[in-house]
Amino acid sequence: MAAGRNVLALDVIWSLNQPLTHETHIRVRYAETDQMGIVYYANYFVWMEIGRVELVRSRGLNYKELENAEGLFLSVVDAKCRYLFPARYDQEILIRTQVHSANPRMVEFAYEIRSVNPDRLLAQASTKHVWLNREMRPSRLPSQYQYLLRPASV
Amino acid sequence: MAAGRNVLALDVIWSLNQPLTHETHIRVRYAETDQMGIVYYANYFVWMEIGRVELVRSRGLNYKELENAEGLFLSVVDAKCRYLFPARYDQEILIRTQVHSANPRMVEFAYEIRSVNPDRLLAQASTKHVWLNREMRPSRLPSQYQYLLRPASV
Amino acid sequence: MAAGRNVLALDVIWSLNQPLTHETHIRVRYAETDQMGIVYYANYFVWMEIGRVELVRSRGLNYKELENAEGLFLSVVDAKCRYLFPARYDQEILIRTQVHSANPRMVEFAYEIRSVNPDRLLAQASTKHVWLNREMRPSRLPSQYQYLLRPASV
Amino acid sequence: MAAGRNVLALDVIWSLNQPLTHETHIRVRYAETDQMGIVYYANYFVWMEIGRVELVRSRGLNYKELENAEGLFLSVVDAKCRYLFPARYDQEILIRTQVHSANPRMVEFAYEIRSVNPDRLLAQASTKHVWLNREMRPSRLPSQYQYLLRPASV
Repeated sequence: MAAGRNVLALDVIWSLNQPLTHETHIRVRYAETDQMGIVYYANYFVWMEIGRVELVRSRGLNYKELENAEGLFLSVVDAKCRYLFPARYDQEILIRTQVHSANPRMVEFAYEIRSVNPDRLLAQASTKHVWLNREMRPSRLPSQYQYLLRPASV
Repeated sequence: MAAGRNVLALDVIWSLNQPLTHETHIRVRYAETDQMGIVYYANYFVWMEIGRVELVRSRGLNYKELENAEGLFLSVVDAKCRYLFPARYDQEILIRTQVHSANPRMVEFAYEIRSVNPDRLLAQASTKHVWLNREMRPSRLPSQYQYLLRPASV
Repeated sequence: MAAGRNVLALDVIWSLNQPLTHETHIRVRYAETDQMGIVYYANYFVWMEIGRVELVRSRGLNYKELENAEGLFLSVVDAKCRYLFPARYDQEILIRTQVHSANPRMVEFAYEIRSVNPDRLLAQASTKHVWLNREMRPSRLPSQYQYLLRPASV
Repeated sequence: MAAGRNVLALDVIWSLNQPLTHETHIRVRYAETDQMGIVYYANYFVWMEIGRVELVRSRGLNYKELENAEGLFLSVVDAKCRYLFPARYDQEILIRTQVHSANPRMVEFAYEIRSVNPDRLLAQASTKHVWLNREMRPSRLPSQYQYLLRPASV
């Protein structure tokens, strides 16, 4: 099947060229701090969303188009964060994201949130998602997209 | 016309029973503060949204149903805020909202944001909105709803 | 010891009059929704903060004064949420909070997030916190406050 | 006066090398959208903060250090935004910021918010700020920093 072969070919190219962990950088916004002078804890979950969207984009998938074209939404069912060290205003933050596990119905992402200067682990986190269709019912990621969410661990 | 008379009747009832300025209370959330120890300035615009939604609800209109049933959205075209005194964590806040002007195509709300203890004016603000339909094109508020947004003046 | 006796007396009064689970109500803000038409997942953590602050207030402790007077901050070290059903704009939300466990150095809160109409469990969550002083070092909650965070169990 | 001469020298260098309008790029986050499928209006004010912080940084001033070292805070007294066209999820956004006017006590920034693809003006905005010290009283920006906030208009 032609489509299948194309996917396989892309998969091979991807596995040779793409890191299994995606890294994206952001800078802490004033709006993200609270009166303790550190980043408010809920904002780490906003950063994780940036991490997983950019991981998916780096593998050639535009999450926005998936929503628009396929009517598929990645709905979160579980989210966890362990906070080790506070992030502060104006710090450069590194978000390391990887697919921890995936099948056509769900994806689990793992994250490391680090400050760049000093290089320090600030938080470890994970989120688990299921695919929903426009009617908000459980759905499956079409097979031509599945290679894009191949887990980091072989 | 029956519908017109009903609206008029309701209008009369409303003008006798409803205050022209709506008051709603909120408490400052930790998430709303920043590292200056005061409420981050963008959050006042979130509070204004609460003020206008509650004003509309107090007049018998559920904004959510207007979105769902009529496919009408109140889209902001202009927003202003003058900050006089900072709001702080855990303070009880009074949001005073009134319709400053309205026609079938647009509404302008005026707001006072006050702390309750001490009683103090924190900010004065206004927002201007137009009605859009589901295709994001300018639309008109059906006449049976117009009395609900009668301005405070006159 | 006089102070000790007072605390004990208050504790007895409290245990007779105060529910072990605190309930607080909020209404979903437009700002809290995302383009999926449901509440963005990070906002549940903002709601949990409201739940635990109101639980503490209901037991006679103003968390703000604890920050100001004692220089103590409740710093989150762990946060988890399991999402069962989406919350929607304008819904009335019930936040049920209880102290799951506590000692002078840490507190663990458990939460249920429910919609009121229909009555439905939307999410189950927990957060774990340690007390920090102004220098951001681990600290202890003074004994006169400890009864306020007595766990729900036992 | 040596300090004065240094400032003058720096000023000359700056005026030759630095654009008077600063441009910074961001990408729309999912968290920034609302159920209308567009960016929630209060978030434009968060973007403006990014614009002015990056403008100041591009001129060699770290706003964070100004807060920490000099105990000076840029407190907003006025904010306005005119919304022309909605921003959408995942769009690349250009924030154009310039100093509209400034003196030792206040600064006024002007902003253009544009989408990159298509290239379109989404919003025009301005914010006015005064300098406050740690006691939240009006203060003055020390002269050695004033050149950094030279207005765009000669």
